[in-house]
Amino acid sequence: MKEKEGKELTKQGAGPENRLVLICFSGDLDKALAAFVIATGAAAMGMDVVMFFTFWGTPLLRDKKKKVGGKDLMGKMFGAMLPKGVSKVKLSKMNMGGMGTVMMKSLMKKKNVASLEDMLELAGEMEVRIFICEMSMDLMGFKREEMIEYPNLTFCGVAKMLEEAQNSKVQFFI
Amino acid sequence: MKEKEGKELTKQGAGPENRLVLICFSGDLDKALAAFVIATGAAAMGMDVVMFFTFWGTPLLRDKKKKVGGKDLMGKMFGAMLPKGVSKVKLSKMNMGGMGTVMMKSLMKKKNVASLEDMLELAGEMEVRIFICEMSMDLMGFKREEMIEYPNLTFCGVAKMLEEAQNSKVQFFI
Amino acid sequence: MKEKEGKELTKQGAGPENRLVLICFSGDLDKALAAFVIATGAAAMGMDVVMFFTFWGTPLLRDKKKKVGGKDLMGKMFGAMLPKGVSKVKLSKMNMGGMGTVMMKSLMKKKNVASLEDMLELAGEMEVRIFICEMSMDLMGFKREEMIEYPNLTFCGVAKMLEEAQNSKVQFFI
Repeated sequence: MKEKEGKELTKQGAGPENRLVLICFSGDLDKALAAFVIATGAAAMGMDVVMFFTFWGTPLLRDKKKKVGGKDLMGKMFGAMLPKGVSKVKLSKMNMGGMGTVMMKSLMKKKNVASLEDMLELAGEMEVRIFICEMSMDLMGFKREEMIEYPNLTFCGVAKMLEEAQNSKVQFFI
Repeated sequence: MKEKEGKELTKQGAGPENRLVLICFSGDLDKALAAFVIATGAAAMGMDVVMFFTFWGTPLLRDKKKKVGGKDLMGKMFGAMLPKGVSKVKLSKMNMGGMGTVMMKSLMKKKNVASLEDMLELAGEMEVRIFICEMSMDLMGFKREEMIEYPNLTFCGVAKMLEEAQNSKVQFFI
Repeated sequence: MKEKEGKELTKQGAGPENRLVLICFSGDLDKALAAFVIATGAAAMGMDVVMFFTFWGTPLLRDKKKKVGGKDLMGKMFGAMLPKGVSKVKLSKMNMGGMGTVMMKSLMKKKNVASLEDMLELAGEMEVRIFICEMSMDLMGFKREEMIEYPNLTFCGVAKMLEEAQNSKVQFFI
């Protein structure tokens, strides 16, 4: 919907009154949905959006097709127990052994609400910037090589996120 | 405590530095309590307050006395499984099969903390504006006719909420 | 790392564009970790930081070595069921009967992430201001005498927190 060239500059040069920072802490389907609806909605309104994925939110950015070796026992355990990408996340409530999540996803389809996969792609097209918390990756033993391809991806710490937050108008911890 | 006429104008004309936007995502008693204490506290300080109810927060605004028909199977299921109004919500922790929630409510009474029902009414009197997320209502099959009567109720989408957030000083995602 | 004298003045006189307000609502290890990483990170960047502990966050500020008597039945129950200080909190997910929490703590040690106890002390040294919600303490039957010693501790209500939030640039509800 816009020209690819010079986009980052335009949006990132937008000034604090037009910037939104989301801390995506949760690894639940419902909260991730809220985060992406807010992020893409704000980007559609011309806001410069930063999503900082941390803690349980970090595994949502793993690429389900990528495999990496050389992990220690803890890293393997986290790798196995946490969702591998946005398509694997579950509802925080009414999951009912997975049935609730399946129901919600079919409802989203029926009601024309985009899936998380589609919203992530849309976010990329709309120049939403994604930050991944390096401390969380380190704790959970995730490697950069297993993360998704995304146009505006930055591996960073809390200081970088706070810098953006200080220069933003709206912030949410999700 | 104030004149009824012209109130909305005064508060809504207050300017961004005096506006608070709360996203009420949670359907838990404890978080709803936090949201209403913050909302009514801010309104008492003269702030213009917007509460945007979305996802699990949406069913809190159902009127327990209203019945609507014509729902499909999914709508009926969500209708039956989710709390019908603020008087039906439960603690997120220590619920203990409902006992924790009963204890918390009796404690609130004893310690003179207003109930959610009372706080919702107070919020109305204090001109707190309530937005209900239409996408959430659509997903859960809720109809406008089953929602509460409230002086300042708006059915809207994320864009309207973001507009208010952009013109606000303080925002919380609860 | 800085002189003790005159610190509060300097930071608190910093102006709204340099102030951060965190509502610490959660009593979970993961969210408390996020709160303290953000708080100490922001303080290290020179921001004036306020952490407002409310609801499930309140028991994190109990001193595990202090004992108080004279509580009623409800107060005793809350006292026994809720964590006594930051060293006792558990993960919100993957706790697995406590094993997940033990694993996470050992991981934090291995990866050189400070423990909550250390971060709380660091926060004190960095002049992070801590507010404790009096309504929550009252509900849960906590007394001032059982709370931690901390250089910048204030017992207050939501209005005091909102005043700081109104004069801050960044706010998160955690």
